[in-house]
Amino acid sequence: MDFESFFKGELNGLHQEGRYRVFADLERQRGQFPKAIRYNADGEKQDVTVWCSNDYLGVGQHPKVIEAMKLAIDQCGAGAGGTRNISGTNHHHVVLERELADLHGKESALLFTSGYVSNWAALGTLCSKIPGVIVFSDAGNHASMIEGIRHSKCERVIFKHNSVADLEAKLAAADPRAPKIIAFESVYSMDGDISPIKEICDLADKYGAMTYLDEVHAVGMYGPRGGGIAEREGLMHRLTVIEGTLGKAFGVMGGYIAASSALCDFIRSFASGFIFTTALPPALAAGAVASIRHLKESQIERFAHQERVRRLRNLLDKNGIPHMANSSHIVPVIVGDAAKCKWISDLLLDNCGIYVQPINYPTVPKKTERLRITPTPLHSDADIDHLVGALHQLWSRCALARAVA
Amino acid sequence: MDFESFFKGELNGLHQEGRYRVFADLERQRGQFPKAIRYNADGEKQDVTVWCSNDYLGVGQHPKVIEAMKLAIDQCGAGAGGTRNISGTNHHHVVLERELADLHGKESALLFTSGYVSNWAALGTLCSKIPGVIVFSDAGNHASMIEGIRHSKCERVIFKHNSVADLEAKLAAADPRAPKIIAFESVYSMDGDISPIKEICDLADKYGAMTYLDEVHAVGMYGPRGGGIAEREGLMHRLTVIEGTLGKAFGVMGGYIAASSALCDFIRSFASGFIFTTALPPALAAGAVASIRHLKESQIERFAHQERVRRLRNLLDKNGIPHMANSSHIVPVIVGDAAKCKWISDLLLDNCGIYVQPINYPTVPKKTERLRITPTPLHSDADIDHLVGALHQLWSRCALARAVA
Repeated sequence: MDFESFFKGELNGLHQEGRYRVFADLERQRGQFPKAIRYNADGEKQDVTVWCSNDYLGVGQHPKVIEAMKLAIDQCGAGAGGTRNISGTNHHHVVLERELADLHGKESALLFTSGYVSNWAALGTLCSKIPGVIVFSDAGNHASMIEGIRHSKCERVIFKHNSVADLEAKLAAADPRAPKIIAFESVYSMDGDISPIKEICDLADKYGAMTYLDEVHAVGMYGPRGGGIAEREGLMHRLTVIEGTLGKAFGVMGGYIAASSALCDFIRSFASGFIFTTALPPALAAGAVASIRHLKESQIERFAHQERVRRLRNLLDKNGIPHMANSSHIVPVIVGDAAKCKWISDLLLDNCGIYVQPINYPTVPKKTERLRITPTPLHSDADIDHLVGALHQLWSRCALARAVA
Repeated sequence: MDFESFFKGELNGLHQEGRYRVFADLERQRGQFPKAIRYNADGEKQDVTVWCSNDYLGVGQHPKVIEAMKLAIDQCGAGAGGTRNISGTNHHHVVLERELADLHGKESALLFTSGYVSNWAALGTLCSKIPGVIVFSDAGNHASMIEGIRHSKCERVIFKHNSVADLEAKLAAADPRAPKIIAFESVYSMDGDISPIKEICDLADKYGAMTYLDEVHAVGMYGPRGGGIAEREGLMHRLTVIEGTLGKAFGVMGGYIAASSALCDFIRSFASGFIFTTALPPALAAGAVASIRHLKESQIERFAHQERVRRLRNLLDKNGIPHMANSSHIVPVIVGDAAKCKWISDLLLDNCGIYVQPINYPTVPKKTERLRITPTPLHSDADIDHLVGALHQLWSRCALARAVA
């Protein structure tokens, strides 16, 4: 087989569908977030404002986090030097796992190298190791959860996105003796909608199911201590597993689960994706501890975040720019066409210094290609005015183009 | 189902088999490697010498790496803030990928969050996306390669570990029209043996197969620029994909593949485990660049490493401590029993301040439980004397115990 031709052919297909990804080459500017420098293809630099970061609160540049990381590097060096089992456990990991257990009111927590790996490894292990388990998985679940479930080869039942009625119908139809896991998210990344956690926990109680909640787009941002939507709604104790990330609102990198000691120890002992991988560098663990501790105490970032989101939505409404309604911090502006989405994004970037990556299939379904805008507490009034002004102009231009076509 | 009881029961099984893992809680000491502080269960601290680190050359504390990381934190902040596609690509990633491509003499390279993820995602994508592909996988391959292949659900053929004859027999028996991938490692982690790369490449040519070589236990340490065993043997150009890690001899964290531009772009565009995960923090990329550049130039660490390995082996031989023969830097001392292996390791740690984690199933097959010793350039003569002296005493004690039983 001519492998090179095969690869090139597949890539050509992406180009033709308009969904070939071009990564923006950025240099984040500590102290200037959400400003960054973009390196163009010709090597020139451009000042841009980032409007699609998952460093949702800008905490990735907080002095406490920066100092904790640098201190840990001076203290312990660069990497962990091994898997958690073979010389790679550093005291910073131990402290971080305690901090995470406390954040979610659980007995224990377990770190992974990313949120993706935490979902893949934890769900993959639970679903493959519990004999005869059936997993009930929300249709909107993230790729990492889907891969973990798929990996396990267990029986899986997909329920309609956020539909309590459909979930109940499917739980009721399943073998009552089979162990069951309900796997879902609190805030869904691309639509920004929030799941009915209480109702799902009620069903879990009724049908004897374990609950597995992904809070990666909520931790740090919701709840009085940043424990997520489940904390805000007083439901953390009702969830068997809460999964989160250190790479979004906490501003660093890594993933975790918080649960009972036995469950965490079980995953620690059996998950290939946990056992056979180098531990997070001590400095990342130290930075995450500083970030979590700060956001357990400070409400300033959360209040400012929500206020910025409201301001952006109001201004979009005033300018007739359609955006999906939801009660989270994620503002999806649907374009509905891969090529056009990329075109708008390119114009915003090249002409206005506004960086919002186009979101295309497979991240979102085809025909729902979008600009996913994430305001942070650090976007100024002028930033918001500039963004909405640019969108307003492009919307007119885009409509004109459609009329001509 | 009573999930808690199930988890506890499974954990009890591990305890009974003597293979329940207890992580050593360490604090690495920059500038003092391989010395570290161990936090005991009662919170007391103990000075230990680490003898099982995969920071094989001690480069994780090199001033160039430390300074590069701290500078990047000051410049860019803590995390990347997004996936590579959605605001997470930082110029440090771009520079690092160029550095890696150059290291292996390939057109391109692609970063992942870990070596585990790079194998899982790259092999998983190649094997699932190339229609009708058959993968020929060495029986000793790492869990991450196995999971990637398993994930893809493609046809797989396991060949006997490092057996060119068995590989050829299996290639010859397969459909000649089917696309083929041969997946193997250069240095096998637990036995430290090295594969016949040239002979495998010859077979790949003969049967039209792609080659995928995992060099995670070789990059930085072998070859005039640290390109690995394939570089040392002048074979890099014959491999389709070279996979490596930034978390072992390079002392930081992360994984990568180096290959043709089309192949890397294909994986970049289709691998779920690449697309849907937060990028490495800019500081890790910057640290890795510093480390790779240093080890491209400097031979001191590699020479000292090999000399320390020879010295340890000679002293083990003189004291009659059996160790597996191999031509790498990994010195496996087989104990062959999970409980005894942990017992020896505990005594070394508690009584002698020597930390060598016991390696039990599933990391190695049952009955081959071992102490896997990894000398570094920074272990002194006194460190080696102390280790071998302690092993000598324990070997006598262990033999006595066996005689009494």
